[in-house]
Amino acid sequence: MGIILHELVGADKNRPFSPHCWKTVMSLAHKGLPFDRNTISFKDIPQLENGYSAKVPIIRDGEKVVADSFEIALYLEDHYPDRPSLFKGAGGRAMARFVEGWSQMTIHPYMNVVILMPVHDLLDAPNQAYFRESREKIFGRKLEDVAAERDAKREAFTKSLEPMRKMLVSQPFIGGEGPLFSDYIVFGAFQWARVLTPYKLLDGSDPVHDWFERCLDLHGGIARQIGAA
Amino acid sequence: MGIILHELVGADKNRPFSPHCWKTVMSLAHKGLPFDRNTISFKDIPQLENGYSAKVPIIRDGEKVVADSFEIALYLEDHYPDRPSLFKGAGGRAMARFVEGWSQMTIHPYMNVVILMPVHDLLDAPNQAYFRESREKIFGRKLEDVAAERDAKREAFTKSLEPMRKMLVSQPFIGGEGPLFSDYIVFGAFQWARVLTPYKLLDGSDPVHDWFERCLDLHGGIARQIGAA
Repeated sequence: MGIILHELVGADKNRPFSPHCWKTVMSLAHKGLPFDRNTISFKDIPQLENGYSAKVPIIRDGEKVVADSFEIALYLEDHYPDRPSLFKGAGGRAMARFVEGWSQMTIHPYMNVVILMPVHDLLDAPNQAYFRESREKIFGRKLEDVAAERDAKREAFTKSLEPMRKMLVSQPFIGGEGPLFSDYIVFGAFQWARVLTPYKLLDGSDPVHDWFERCLDLHGGIARQIGAA
Repeated sequence: MGIILHELVGADKNRPFSPHCWKTVMSLAHKGLPFDRNTISFKDIPQLENGYSAKVPIIRDGEKVVADSFEIALYLEDHYPDRPSLFKGAGGRAMARFVEGWSQMTIHPYMNVVILMPVHDLLDAPNQAYFRESREKIFGRKLEDVAAERDAKREAFTKSLEPMRKMLVSQPFIGGEGPLFSDYIVFGAFQWARVLTPYKLLDGSDPVHDWFERCLDLHGGIARQIGAA
């Protein structure tokens, strides 16, 4: 039996959108490991794997259960060392934490604005109620008020990608000549938006757009199989 | 004969300040390689090593001359593989380019504001004229007008360090448990300000402050030997 990935979906089970689950999809594909995608809703998470974690992704690999996309990548790296590396050494492991920090603190805050109403709208009624309550608690405001800032914040978001553009002058991926887990960290955030909303985040001439397209082509185009919203 | 590092100074030859030269000082110390610091002024650079490069750092290692702090780190890594690693693998090499992009596009723009008048003031008259002309061309404004934005921009600068704070929850250095070249990339920017101005960039309670103090302690405290301005 292959690895099972517990992965978040909304009412349409064919359109997984969680950025963190996408990091794990890409990690498993990178390692060339067979896996089954078990789609679940927000409210199903507490019952998964005997309440193993409050968040997905969670994987089951035989007897072993692992949660958190970074922990899963480390697990896969250590347990499948003969497969293509996700980190390429101790330096890559450490610096992936820096890329994670950058993605979480720079990209995710804006993505949260962009995807807020689209996520809400695709959930069924009980999950909508859960989503609204939990997110309004985090933001301290109504969902609609947060979402209204999307256009006004786009320029600052685009500017915040300058570190990546500067890096892309030297190499095609964060991982160098080819992708590593650090690419999937940032990819997950952009794929989240791609699956949920037709809103145009990047101009076609943006080197970050080209990088994202390269990522969509990886591993047989596994991430492109879910069409853009 | 050890390695020679051509390093920028102002009128006081005992206070090297260039962020890029500091990256190389730390790289050479990390490798445990003996080196001599040949201090030069802005206007000396075109005459160095037969006009090898328009910018410092430049190192001479026997017959070999290398310019650019990143290229120098790669050279040292490849030519002294038995010494402590500056990258810890191919992933670390690649992701150091991402850290460089972040440092250049996020930290340097503010540091350039903070250090502008202090650098100007410590140069001798011919170098002051060179500095003013070249920098006012870059900024498109008078030095004094750029420098006046220091206090107003401090809060946004501090907020821009969030990726690093997030990473420091997981580990004490960008390189993981110990420093790598990626730490020296960011360190160079903060040391630049430390040597040039008493202006307080970070609160004492900031995890980035603690990280910087850890860097100052490295390699026998080589960077702390130059007192704070």
